[in-house]
Parts: sequence; structure tokens; C-alpha cells
Amino acid sequence: MQMVVSDRVVGQQPNGERATVPVIQFSNGTGPKVYIQANIHGAEIQGNAVIERFLSLCRTHPPQGQFTIVPMANPIGINQKSGEFTLGRFDPISGDNWNRQYHFNGDAIAPFAQQQRHASDQQVKAAFTELLQQQLQARLQTPWGLKTGQRMALSLQQLATDADIVLDLHTGPVSDRHLYVPEFARAQAKRFNIPLNIIMPADFGGALDEAAFSPWWQLSQAFAALGRDFPIAVNAFTLELGSQEHLDPHQAEQDALGIASYLEQHGCWADGSHHPTPVTQHACLLQDYRALYSPSGGQVEYLGQLGTPLPQGQAIARIWHYHKLGQDTPLFEEITLPCDAIPVLHFASANAQQGTELYKVLTNTFEL
Amino acid sequence: MQMVVSDRVVGQQPNGERATVPVIQFSNGTGPKVYIQANIHGAEIQGNAVIERFLSLCRTHPPQGQFTIVPMANPIGINQKSGEFTLGRFDPISGDNWNRQYHFNGDAIAPFAQQQRHASDQQVKAAFTELLQQQLQARLQTPWGLKTGQRMALSLQQLATDADIVLDLHTGPVSDRHLYVPEFARAQAKRFNIPLNIIMPADFGGALDEAAFSPWWQLSQAFAALGRDFPIAVNAFTLELGSQEHLDPHQAEQDALGIASYLEQHGCWADGSHHPTPVTQHACLLQDYRALYSPSGGQVEYLGQLGTPLPQGQAIARIWHYHKLGQDTPLFEEITLPCDAIPVLHFASANAQQGTELYKVLTNTFEL
Amino acid sequence: MQMVVSDRVVGQQPNGERATVPVIQFSNGTGPKVYIQANIHGAEIQGNAVIERFLSLCRTHPPQGQFTIVPMANPIGINQKSGEFTLGRFDPISGDNWNRQYHFNGDAIAPFAQQQRHASDQQVKAAFTELLQQQLQARLQTPWGLKTGQRMALSLQQLATDADIVLDLHTGPVSDRHLYVPEFARAQAKRFNIPLNIIMPADFGGALDEAAFSPWWQLSQAFAALGRDFPIAVNAFTLELGSQEHLDPHQAEQDALGIASYLEQHGCWADGSHHPTPVTQHACLLQDYRALYSPSGGQVEYLGQLGTPLPQGQAIARIWHYHKLGQDTPLFEEITLPCDAIPVLHFASANAQQGTELYKVLTNTFEL
Amino acid sequence: MQMVVSDRVVGQQPNGERATVPVIQFSNGTGPKVYIQANIHGAEIQGNAVIERFLSLCRTHPPQGQFTIVPMANPIGINQKSGEFTLGRFDPISGDNWNRQYHFNGDAIAPFAQQQRHASDQQVKAAFTELLQQQLQARLQTPWGLKTGQRMALSLQQLATDADIVLDLHTGPVSDRHLYVPEFARAQAKRFNIPLNIIMPADFGGALDEAAFSPWWQLSQAFAALGRDFPIAVNAFTLELGSQEHLDPHQAEQDALGIASYLEQHGCWADGSHHPTPVTQHACLLQDYRALYSPSGGQVEYLGQLGTPLPQGQAIARIWHYHKLGQDTPLFEEITLPCDAIPVLHFASANAQQGTELYKVLTNTFEL
Repeated sequence: MQMVVSDRVVGQQPNGERATVPVIQFSNGTGPKVYIQANIHGAEIQGNAVIERFLSLCRTHPPQGQFTIVPMANPIGINQKSGEFTLGRFDPISGDNWNRQYHFNGDAIAPFAQQQRHASDQQVKAAFTELLQQQLQARLQTPWGLKTGQRMALSLQQLATDADIVLDLHTGPVSDRHLYVPEFARAQAKRFNIPLNIIMPADFGGALDEAAFSPWWQLSQAFAALGRDFPIAVNAFTLELGSQEHLDPHQAEQDALGIASYLEQHGCWADGSHHPTPVTQHACLLQDYRALYSPSGGQVEYLGQLGTPLPQGQAIARIWHYHKLGQDTPLFEEITLPCDAIPVLHFASANAQQGTELYKVLTNTFEL
Repeated sequence: MQMVVSDRVVGQQPNGERATVPVIQFSNGTGPKVYIQANIHGAEIQGNAVIERFLSLCRTHPPQGQFTIVPMANPIGINQKSGEFTLGRFDPISGDNWNRQYHFNGDAIAPFAQQQRHASDQQVKAAFTELLQQQLQARLQTPWGLKTGQRMALSLQQLATDADIVLDLHTGPVSDRHLYVPEFARAQAKRFNIPLNIIMPADFGGALDEAAFSPWWQLSQAFAALGRDFPIAVNAFTLELGSQEHLDPHQAEQDALGIASYLEQHGCWADGSHHPTPVTQHACLLQDYRALYSPSGGQVEYLGQLGTPLPQGQAIARIWHYHKLGQDTPLFEEITLPCDAIPVLHFASANAQQGTELYKVLTNTFEL
Repeated sequence: MQMVVSDRVVGQQPNGERATVPVIQFSNGTGPKVYIQANIHGAEIQGNAVIERFLSLCRTHPPQGQFTIVPMANPIGINQKSGEFTLGRFDPISGDNWNRQYHFNGDAIAPFAQQQRHASDQQVKAAFTELLQQQLQARLQTPWGLKTGQRMALSLQQLATDADIVLDLHTGPVSDRHLYVPEFARAQAKRFNIPLNIIMPADFGGALDEAAFSPWWQLSQAFAALGRDFPIAVNAFTLELGSQEHLDPHQAEQDALGIASYLEQHGCWADGSHHPTPVTQHACLLQDYRALYSPSGGQVEYLGQLGTPLPQGQAIARIWHYHKLGQDTPLFEEITLPCDAIPVLHFASANAQQGTELYKVLTNTFEL
Repeated sequence: MQMVVSDRVVGQQPNGERATVPVIQFSNGTGPKVYIQANIHGAEIQGNAVIERFLSLCRTHPPQGQFTIVPMANPIGINQKSGEFTLGRFDPISGDNWNRQYHFNGDAIAPFAQQQRHASDQQVKAAFTELLQQQLQARLQTPWGLKTGQRMALSLQQLATDADIVLDLHTGPVSDRHLYVPEFARAQAKRFNIPLNIIMPADFGGALDEAAFSPWWQLSQAFAALGRDFPIAVNAFTLELGSQEHLDPHQAEQDALGIASYLEQHGCWADGSHHPTPVTQHACLLQDYRALYSPSGGQVEYLGQLGTPLPQGQAIARIWHYHKLGQDTPLFEEITLPCDAIPVLHFASANAQQGTELYKVLTNTFEL
């Protein structure tokens, strides 16, 4: 199986250098179109290691389908150092999150559904994919130009738009592995073998997973309004595979297996070909995925273990106030949550402002 | 007339230091409640100079009304240096724009209008102000805490919520003076004597001006749906009074006069008491206020003069490609706009990426 | 024993806020003057935890001597966030390292020694301390002003200048505990119970430890040239007590015991009062403390265990080149060192440029 | 005359991208070897415009000599945005100034002079150039690697090392044009036609001009100690040609003429071929080139006009303290200098800390 590698230009730096991403493509027999991307946030490098393991696994045991894989997806963000760390979560000029700049304009949905209401599912799918590609092309050609992050996002989105399955590999700050699951795709998500799962509605908020599935979900809704049952044709997930600024090749192996196991459901391999070591899987709804913001500025001792249920009232963190050293006042305050929770991730520094997002937690959890 | 000054805590730094803003309050006779704020974006210091001139003018000739004035409104942003400049437009941790974190939850509008539909205008106003204050109070007391920027914004918003008039003083990057005018307040806006004006709808997007007027506009709409004519009780404007990182006390004098002249319409002074040197005033709708993004990375020669109409097809900027020096290729490209326009502001650096916002311009302009 | 706490102003922020540090002072009986400082680099918060444990220990069992203790020593650096991390190693405006701005002008040494050559050791010590204080005072009063970092450093140095013992608490990026030991103070250093030790000459390069001992060492040299044996009156050490951005109260307890054990040698407590769990102690000369810079840009898998001897030729790191994914080229290179070494610290991010300082290591090691 | 353009690799980014600089080379007849570089500080782009004008002038009227010209010399710094500005003065990881990382080890000078004391001047020059190249080559090949900035600097320095004339084009923050002149090259410097000039000793401190001339000056001193008069073979200057983040093609034309006029003295063109519009030229010694640091934090009104003599006691700046608005205290302080001075440059932002470098000024001035 031949892997074809090319460079895709997604921007240009002030010094004239083209910002490029590597694009790996291969296909084999008949199967779904799969798009996998990693590292759109510059510090979140673990996804590249997962892709490395996944490609190795594909070489050994070629999957059915057409694959487009983009590691190192954000050449500007990956190279943006600030101190020792990588300031790659948002555009350093504007503050815009690199993963909130994908495009979809829903105005076209209703007239499209009306027009295509008698076409076959397959015809609809082809026509709608074409419509989405045209939207992107039109945006990219506006005479007013596009923002740096929009141009990058849309250049990537062009590659993802005809995929049946879109996987966007991220990490949290200091984080356990977790998965964003669109409500409609809940049944299949278990196969990723990711311990913490957030079930979310299918709205569009600018992220890649949403940009991939939300148009199809909206189309499905529009057809439903016309009395037609049109299945959601695209599955898309954001996988958060550990901590930023960190490389863990051994865990990457497991997550590559999880992805392969998921793809077995779509025919890429025979069902049961891959066996990641199973984990306990917790889930909650997006509205129950809560952030805890620091009640004060200070130095933080993170007590809540990631992935481990924490009963209401038990301390999740201790905020130290070392500026009060030598005084006869308490030097720390203990933070508890108003309900039971499972910590998913915590802030990457022990030095926090009032209002710093200390933890994110699952609440009202259930088994996936 | 006595000015009362106090410090308001709006956050806490990691080292324990309270982030505080100065609050200046004075009142005199009967007149509107006026709230003026400056410098929520850290680099935009000119508004403080305008407040300095405005207070001087109030001392000399005391206005009617109750005034609450907050200069230096963002202690975190003002102190956030990065290189020589002030990285004060967004939270350096999250990228969140400091001026998109004010709060309003519109769900309460419809039941409130229903409930108050027989109350007097004055009763409605008092009750609705109370409702807005309660919303803020509830948000500030959530057991999950608030983001740094939300806490700061809400702490300021508490001061602004009972005002009849809210003025938020900003600047652009390198910028001519311009004004955001809610459609409903268009008639009075001329008196600010600001040359470039953007007429915008009354929606809420997180900025202070919107947080001030949008609830009242929505309330007015809700009453209209019930067949009652309820006037929009709050006027609010974002004034962009020049360029960031720059102090111009002489222009500040003029803009203080413009503000006073505007306030005369609300009875703070006798009409005609203040005389800023009149300027020609252009305006366009928000949808016609366009950004031009750089088509390539390079070094920029800004040719379009701020505030001066630029005919379609005339070069607004030249992008130099010095990485091609010594080659037999053109070294620059000239950028033109697809229509007539008036440049309002341009990027603060001559060093640009592809996708950098080079200029913002008024198009389809008309006289205010 | 009464601890007196005060605030010392060391700067002023753009918004008018005073940059202050807490100063804790207490004394008891007769014993050395001890100055302890922590967190001059903003991300290096662990020293505060060590101070917390040390003060607790002093409360329980009061030491002999006069103590001045400054936690949270850099209010600007501690509050300087950039992304989630703390950009507190250097002034964000100038790039100047906050710990290279202390002051000493050696020109005064030779004439001073000449003038004082017949004075008693005690007289010399008092006179020289006075001279150093005058130098600082004069610098602080220059009509040209002082740089931000110089003013802060000198304001702290004033507190440290009459101390017999100066301890400056730092951390590395991701780091094992290590100690900078001036050659002349080598014998006593063992008592800190720190596993990795760097023996350095007594030159002045702008750091606090050097600013404390180097004048005295130079004075001793100048007297030696006059044929007089004058002991070095000040001991000073930089203690690197773990990793930045991290708080470890349990290790802090151990390091507080180590400091107390060191101070026993100077009479603060009876010898043998404190018992940190002993560790194996390695050392090398400063010239043998080597940095390894990345030979290429890429993503780093850190293989060398901190504190564990690594034989020549064994891989210390693997640099992954994920931009080559899908190609038939090796995806990583393994980095080895040209000699045996003990890794002390490594870079805090797995995302590195060519030339990034990947590791620092002891070579040509010996037992302390 | 053929210009040969090539790319030189000076580093590698985390995403694998090579950091490259364009190198332009051409030669014609016999004449000096000239090396011109611009933009080693990322925000200082004006030098590229000067090179553009200089190359145009060379095309029209080919000079005698061998030219190596490197615009856009710092691909990492130029692309390092932070907010709207370019954080290109120092390495964002380490804080190291990009223009303090050139290499020279003076230990080799004395033995070299001893060994070559009977060689001809021409032989000495060739042998010493060879020695310097070997030093660079050896540094670049160390098994421990080199820092990012050192590798970049040394890669450029290799191109500059056999030049007779080295010109490094910079700018200040907000700055009048000024020139650093090594004492020995003072006579010729007038021809650059730059208004403000700083006469400096020939020591090595890590900058490119020093790295170019200082070895030769030290060699000349070493020969003098042996009783031989060996002329300083290399002239090198740092030209500060305006303000960072700004492009001024018209001034660039003048400065290209000034450079050509300077080079006429070395035979590149017939004397008197170029005629920049003459300016008044002031100068002072490096020790009299003083920085004024802000005595407090606040917002700055820059009153001292760049390039215009300012009498002692006349205000150079006003620091506003807007956090005191509404109080009955003075709102600003006026800053004066302790002597007559000519302002050369000022800080780029009106938002300053205590200790911010507000101005740099010439004092004890004389005509060049």
C-alpha cells in the first residue's frame, strides 16, 4: 500500500516562508473516507505520535478505505514559543482559538433540502458535499481576504469535507484522555476505548468536528421537517489524548489501536482485529462538563486525581497564599465541588489568578 | 462639587495582589446617571486622558446628574507587557477578548415583560434594573467560580447597570477616531463630533455597550410584541478615540468637549455649552464596515490615509517581499479594494502574515 | 518568637500599582544573620513552600540568629502569564534575566583593602558592609533612574547585604534538586542534603548568590595580595529545589530540614537537631556542568532519567520528526552524549527548535 | 552584473521547517569585500528597504568589489508576533538578544601574533581570517550543540568573516537615525550622513559589528605590543535607520545613498558619485550615550523631540498617573535631565513601568 505525501500551503509568514502541512494519503479497496488531523493547537503534539503508531499499524495490516492524514496541522502554532512553552492554542495576534475558525453557513440548508427532497440519499450526499466545498472555495476567494486562522482552517477543511469520518486529535493541558461525542454517534464511540466522554449536541461552534458533522445533522433535521428520514452521513470526533507539551509513545500505541477498533465498525478492518487494553468508560452530557475557576489568586496544589471519582465535599485543590507567610492567618484554602465529579484535566501551572480554570470535571456521570 | 474616589477590587493576581480599579463618583442636582469607562483593553490609554479633560471640565462647570467614572479599568491588561508593547487586548492565558465577557441572559425578558405589562414605565425601569443587577449578582456567586475576565467585566458592569448613559472609551491600533452607534441612538450620536461612525444593530455580543443597551432594546421589543410602546431607556456607545499605545492630551480635550456636547442633550448642561471644533462626519452600517486581510506575508507600506475617502482601484497598501531581493521578480504587490472606502484604522506593525487584518474601512458611506 | 511582616516596594506597574514583596523578620539570641529569598523567577514557586515549612520549623523550635525572609520576591514575574505558563524568567520588555541584575562594582576593593589593612577583622567587616550598602544606595539614587529589574534586584539586595548567609531558592524547568556551591564553601554544602551539586568559582556575574559572596571573596583576595589572611565572611548559595510551575509540599518539608541542617553549622541550632532523609550526593565543577542543545527541530522524548548516571553512548533523548510521517525516512534520531553524565534537568516542553537546551548534565562527577 | 541568490539554512523550527535567509552575492572588478545584513532583530524591517534601494543603485551603476548581502536575516525573530507587534529582539525562550550571540575567542590572538610577527600584512590578513573561520567552524561542530541564536549568528558570521567592511542595519524603537562608530573608524563615518553618532571602543560584546572589527583591533594591539604597526583591516558599523515596525522607502533611498557615499572611500565607486542630502551630524562617546529610566509607572507623554538638542532642565517627558484621577493630587510629573542632551530614541509605548527605558540621549556632544 503506497502512502503519498505532499505539502499543503496553509499560510505565509512575514518573512515570506510558506506555512505548510504534510498531507499523507493512501487508499485500499472499498471502505469509508477517513480524515485524521493532529496538532491544530501548537502544544498538543501527542496526536502526531498516535498517527505515527496508526500508520505503522496500517502498513502492517492495510485497512479498507481512503485515508487522508494531516499531522503537524498548524505550522504557525507549533513554532510559536513563549518562554519554554508553546503558545499554540490561539493566534498570538488576535487571541482567536485556532480550532474555532472552521466555516459553515447554515442558510443554504433549507433551500437545499427543499430542492433535493426527491433525490436519492447518494445523490443528496454528493450534492451536499459539493455545496460545502463550494462554500469553502467562495470564502477562500473573497476579495477582502481571510484571517490567518480562517485561511488555515479552511485549507484543512477542504481536505476533510468529503470524508465520512473525521478525527481531530488534541490534548488537554494536564489531562486524562477524553472524547467529545456527538449525541447521534454515541453508540459507536465506546470503541475508541477512551475513559472519559462528553456527549454533546450537534451544533456548530467553529471547531473541526462540528464543522464536519453539524452540516449533515442540520441537513438531516431539514429533511425531517420535510418528512424525510435522511441519515447523518458524517461522523466526527475530537479526541483529547493526554497532556500538551508531552510525548508518550506507549500510550500512543494504545490510542492508535482504539482508533482502529472504532474504524472496524465502518469496515476498515474486520470487526475484532484490534484489541486496545480495555478501560472503564465514564460519560456525562456537555452541560454537565463543568469548569472550576479559582476563587482567588495563589499557588495551587492539585489534589483531585484525574480520572478518579471525587465525592462532593472532598478537596480537589488547595490554594496557597504565600504572600501571607509569617502572618497569623491561614495560608491555604481548600476547594471543594458542589457535587460528585470526575476530574478530567487541570491547569498546567501551579501559579494561578483568581478566575483561572483550575479543573474541568464530569458531573452527573453515567457509563458510556 | 465633591468627587469621591474609591478602589474597586476586580480580581486577584497570583502573587496575592488585588487587581483594583479607581472609581470616581460625583453628583449634582437632577440629571441622568452617566457611566464612563476607559482602558478595558490594556494598550488603549487615550481614554484616560479624555476622562482627565472631562473631569477638569466638570470641575470648572459642574454638570447635572450622577456620574460614575472608571479610568484604567483593566489592571491586568494594562500591566501585561510583551516586548515594548502592551498585550492588553485579550487574556494572555485564554485568548479571550477582555471586552467580550460582559453578561446578559435574555431568557428572562419575555416573562418579565409579561409580568410587568401593566406597570408604569418608571416601575418597569426600576424593576428591570433590579433584575439585571440580580443576574450579575447570581453569576458572581456561582460555586463554580468565574473566569478572570468575566469576574472583572461583571464587577465593572455592576457599576454601569443603573446608568442611563454608558460610554466605553477605546482606541484602535493605528486609528482615526470612530464611534459605534446603535441604530436606535443614531440621531443623538452626531454630537460626539467623531468623524467616522458605524451604525450597528442592538444585539448582544459580550461588549460593554451592548451589555448596557441590548437588554433594554430586547425589553422594548418584547413589550412591542405585547402591543406596548416602551422606550429604550439606556444609551450606550463605544468611542474609539485614536491609536493604542499613544497619548494625545490635545485631542483628548476635543473629545471631552464632544462627550460634554453629547451629554447636553440629556440635560447635563444647557444645550450649546460646549463647542468642539466641528469635523466632517461619515457613517456606514456595521455590515459595510469591512476588514481587509493581507493576501500574503510581507512588509507593509500603508498608503491609504485614515479618514480620507479612497476610490475603488487606488492602492491602499503595498506588500513588500524582501525575501525575494536580488531576484528578477516584482518585489511588491499593490493592494486595492473592490469598492470605494474610507480607511478607519490599520494594523500597528509593518510586519504582517498572510491573513493579518491590514485595514478596516467604511464602505457604502453616508453622512451621519 | 515574634515574626514581623512588612511590605517592601520594589517597583511600580503602569497602572500605578506598587510592586511589593513580603518581608518576614525575626531574631532570637545570638547567631548569624540569615537572608532567604524565593521566587525571583516567576515560575519557580517551590521555594515558597520550602519557606513555609522552614518557618513552621522555626516556630516549633526557634533558631538562634537574625532572619530576614522574602518569599514571592518578584511581583512582576510571578504575575506575568503567557498562555497557561508563567513567563517569569526574564523581563518581558527587555529579555533581561531577573537574576542577573544585582550590583557590585569591584573598583572599590583595592583602595578599601589598602585603607583598612590595619583594622580588625570585625572593623573591616562592618566597614565593607557599609561600603556595599553605600554602593547600592548611590545606584538607587542616580538621576538617570534604574531599569525595572535593577531596581527590584537592588531593593532586595539591600536586605541581603548585611547577612552572613544568603540562600536564594530557585527551581529548574523539569529538574532534579541541585545546588550551586562556591568553591570556598564546599565543605559545608553537604549538609543541604541536595543530590546534585555544581562547584563554581567566586566570580560576580549578576546573580544574588554571587552578589552576596563575591565582594567578600574579592576582598579576601585583595588582602591576600597585601599579605593578610582575611576570611570570606559571607556564604551564599543558589538552591534549585525541583521543577518550575509545580508545588510539592512534601519535598518542601525535606528541603526545609536540609536548610536547617546546614544552618546548624553556623550555630542556629545545636548540631544534629534536624534529620532530612539522606541522599546520595554527586558533584562536578561548573566547567563540567554542560548543556546539550538540540541538533534539530522536532518533538522530544526525554529518555535520560534525572539524577541517574547515564553511560556515554546511551540515548538521552529521541527527537521525532513527525513532519516526515508517511515518508520512507527514519522518523526519529537518537541523541547520545560524548561522555558519561548525570542528567540534572531537561527542557519543559516536548516541542523544540534546533538549538533548544534539551538537558543540562553533570560530567566528570565526584562525590561531594 | 549578475546577482546570485541562494538560501542559507540558519536553524530548524519545531515543525521541521528550515529557518533560511536569502543571500545575495555579486562581484565586479577589484574592490573591497562588503557584507551588509539587515533585520537580525525581527521588528527592525527598514534595513531591508535600504538594501532594496542599495541594490537598485548597484544595478544602475555597478560598484567595484565583492558584495554579500543578507536581508531578512532572522527568520525566527521576524515571524515571532506577540499581539500586533513583532517580538523579535530576543529569543522568546531564553530572553537572549539575537544580536549578542556572535562568537570570538580572544585567547588565540597573542600566540597568533607571536607566530606571524614576520609575515607580510597580506599573509597575516589571510591567516587571521582563516583562524577566525576555523573558530566558527569548530564552534558549529561541537558535539554538545549550539543555542538557537548562536547557531543563527555563527551561520551569518561565516558569511561576514572575510569581509573588509561589515554593515549591520538596525532600527531603534521610535528613533532618529543613528550610528555606532568604532573609535578607530571615526574619520570615515561622516560619509554615512547619519545625524546622530555614538563613538565606541573596539571591545567585543557579542554584536556583529564588534565580532567583525574587534578581533582585528585586538590583533593590531597584540602586534603593537610586539613593536609592529598592523593596521585594523576591517571596518564595521551598526546603522540604526529609523523606527522598528515601520517602513519608509523614501528615507531608505537617502540611507542607501549614504552607504554608497561611505563605500566610495573604499573604492567601490569614484569618490563623489553619490549625494545624499546632507544632515547636521552630532556625536558623543559611548559612555555619554545615556539611558533615562522612568522614575515611576504611568502613561507617558513624550516631549523631547528626537534629534533636537534639549537644554538641561527642560521637560523631556511627562508621566501621567491616571490611577489618581479624581483625587486632589498632581496627575503628572515632569521629567528633566541632569544635563544638556539630544534625544536619540524613545520607548515605543506610552504605557510604562517604573524602570522602563524612556529615552536614550547623546550628552557631551560634539560635531562628528
